[in-house]
Amino acid sequence: MKGVIAMRAPGVSVVDLTHGIPPQAVAVGAFVLRASMPYFPLGTVHVAVVDPGVGSERRALCIETRAGCLVGPDNGVLAPAAQAAGVRRVIELTEERFFLTPRSATFHGRDVFAPVAAALASGTSPGALGTERNDFARLDLPSPSSAGDEVRGAVLHVDHFGNLITNIPPALFPATAFVVRVGDVRIGPVADTYGAVAIGAVVAVVDSFGLLEIAVRDGRASDALGVGVGIPVSLVPA
Amino acid sequence: MKGVIAMRAPGVSVVDLTHGIPPQAVAVGAFVLRASMPYFPLGTVHVAVVDPGVGSERRALCIETRAGCLVGPDNGVLAPAAQAAGVRRVIELTEERFFLTPRSATFHGRDVFAPVAAALASGTSPGALGTERNDFARLDLPSPSSAGDEVRGAVLHVDHFGNLITNIPPALFPATAFVVRVGDVRIGPVADTYGAVAIGAVVAVVDSFGLLEIAVRDGRASDALGVGVGIPVSLVPA
Amino acid sequence: MKGVIAMRAPGVSVVDLTHGIPPQAVAVGAFVLRASMPYFPLGTVHVAVVDPGVGSERRALCIETRAGCLVGPDNGVLAPAAQAAGVRRVIELTEERFFLTPRSATFHGRDVFAPVAAALASGTSPGALGTERNDFARLDLPSPSSAGDEVRGAVLHVDHFGNLITNIPPALFPATAFVVRVGDVRIGPVADTYGAVAIGAVVAVVDSFGLLEIAVRDGRASDALGVGVGIPVSLVPA
Repeated sequence: MKGVIAMRAPGVSVVDLTHGIPPQAVAVGAFVLRASMPYFPLGTVHVAVVDPGVGSERRALCIETRAGCLVGPDNGVLAPAAQAAGVRRVIELTEERFFLTPRSATFHGRDVFAPVAAALASGTSPGALGTERNDFARLDLPSPSSAGDEVRGAVLHVDHFGNLITNIPPALFPATAFVVRVGDVRIGPVADTYGAVAIGAVVAVVDSFGLLEIAVRDGRASDALGVGVGIPVSLVPA
Repeated sequence: MKGVIAMRAPGVSVVDLTHGIPPQAVAVGAFVLRASMPYFPLGTVHVAVVDPGVGSERRALCIETRAGCLVGPDNGVLAPAAQAAGVRRVIELTEERFFLTPRSATFHGRDVFAPVAAALASGTSPGALGTERNDFARLDLPSPSSAGDEVRGAVLHVDHFGNLITNIPPALFPATAFVVRVGDVRIGPVADTYGAVAIGAVVAVVDSFGLLEIAVRDGRASDALGVGVGIPVSLVPA
Repeated sequence: MKGVIAMRAPGVSVVDLTHGIPPQAVAVGAFVLRASMPYFPLGTVHVAVVDPGVGSERRALCIETRAGCLVGPDNGVLAPAAQAAGVRRVIELTEERFFLTPRSATFHGRDVFAPVAAALASGTSPGALGTERNDFARLDLPSPSSAGDEVRGAVLHVDHFGNLITNIPPALFPATAFVVRVGDVRIGPVADTYGAVAIGAVVAVVDSFGLLEIAVRDGRASDALGVGVGIPVSLVPA
């Protein structure tokens, strides 16, 4: 992909954000893309290729947003970032003259999305890339809910450090004293920093995504608690 | 290596293609280099350092090809890419004034190949780097063969997704109905896409290298089949 | 972090040196930073974020050296590189106008160090970033010692190949014949290259850091010997 962009858009700067999304984990890719996009310049072209349906009938898209264009498969990986940034228009990538020839059935990152991103970065209008559509595949990351004096959420992502990123923002924290529960384990109130607890202890903090995170100080919460994506996390009265 | 290039060739763009070649796996590095090179601009300087013989008497080379220069150890890692691109001349890197001083015995990537690549990228002629030679170490990736109505090949590479990349191109596919066999397991005919089978099922496709690939839909074929590089793959009558 | 730098310092070249430092391993990060810095251009801004105390009272620093500025937490990760390069002045990062707003409690790499590095790379003087200080947190990597005709050191780092990097430079090698001992295992004299021994054998060399290294030819010394960081290594009479 980097070679194709270097060929098609010489001099354009490429940022390799991550190769750490687990294979086929569309929701994790979608979460990381949405969380990262606000930290890039307006007008950046973002390419995301978590694409288990490559070669099938799933569409290929450019979603033009107020923050920049998103390019990738229409399987939901682009959706949360697009909705957060504000969708302007959705273009199905049908103009094959922008693709590589021949085009493989297994790696559209190289053969479709990279050359399209290069075209956009070189000034091609999104409208020239294909046909405008009214919608795109949604991917609803699980939402937190309130029930009585309890808030219920889930782990969205396990990061490089084994930290558990939940879907619960501080705006949902109860007004009265509460503790965090992961599965069946009560882990205390929310702390300001990892350093608020002893080394090896479990700690809940508000993390750099602006979400409740469960960590182990100087350790791996995913290993210590034996949990991962999808595990319920709740806030219950102290 | 990136720092050395930044010192010796300020402003030159560096693409970090992969650090995913297993240690000492010269053939895997050679395969990935040959497969990637056509997707980079003509004139690119390609550096490949899979170099278990570093510090020994193995030569250091610049192979000038019709597509660009290849720089690395003379252990075969450059050979398939060089042969595919068309060799113009072979230069043994003997002009030590282009190297770092002092030069370690364990990391010629930093001390020899990076500064030589920087010199090439800055306009130094390959001929200025050393002495022209008539040959270079070959690395013959295993070739497929036909025997009766059977085609026999092998797994060349296991990629990041656990997919098994073979050495069998579609040009060798039998004209009559056939199925793919991996070791002793028959896995059916070649499909158009991963999505042609159920999740978790084994599927054979033609992949982005233009070679027969064995995959598991949304899974890891290397784990599911318990096989790796070198395992025989054949095409047999259906 | 790369996105923030692209926003705050458009056009500045970013080198992604490594994400391979184990979590919370401040001493490993400090070692790799010190070892790498001499291979970058003078004036480079180096950012190092191994930061288990993020969000706590630990200070954030810019250490201006004769080779360039170092930016990161004041936990010792910058110290060996700073001392090797020659400290000019130490600035505590107190000018919050250079930070992102809001600032998370868990990722100062993105919210503090990247934007400060971008400011430095764009020409901001270190002095404008905060308050000059007289000192910074030291991190004393373990030093080798001599006792009688024995030299005693330790493993500082296990690299990507499983090689054991020690803290013993050739200047400390005894004048008389000696062999290397790792824990209780005697592994022979120092060789010139990995290739001096048979495949699979243990070998001691002087490596690209200019330090004694224990390797297994075409293998992983850390696995073969079952040892890691901190293990004693000594040079004893042959």
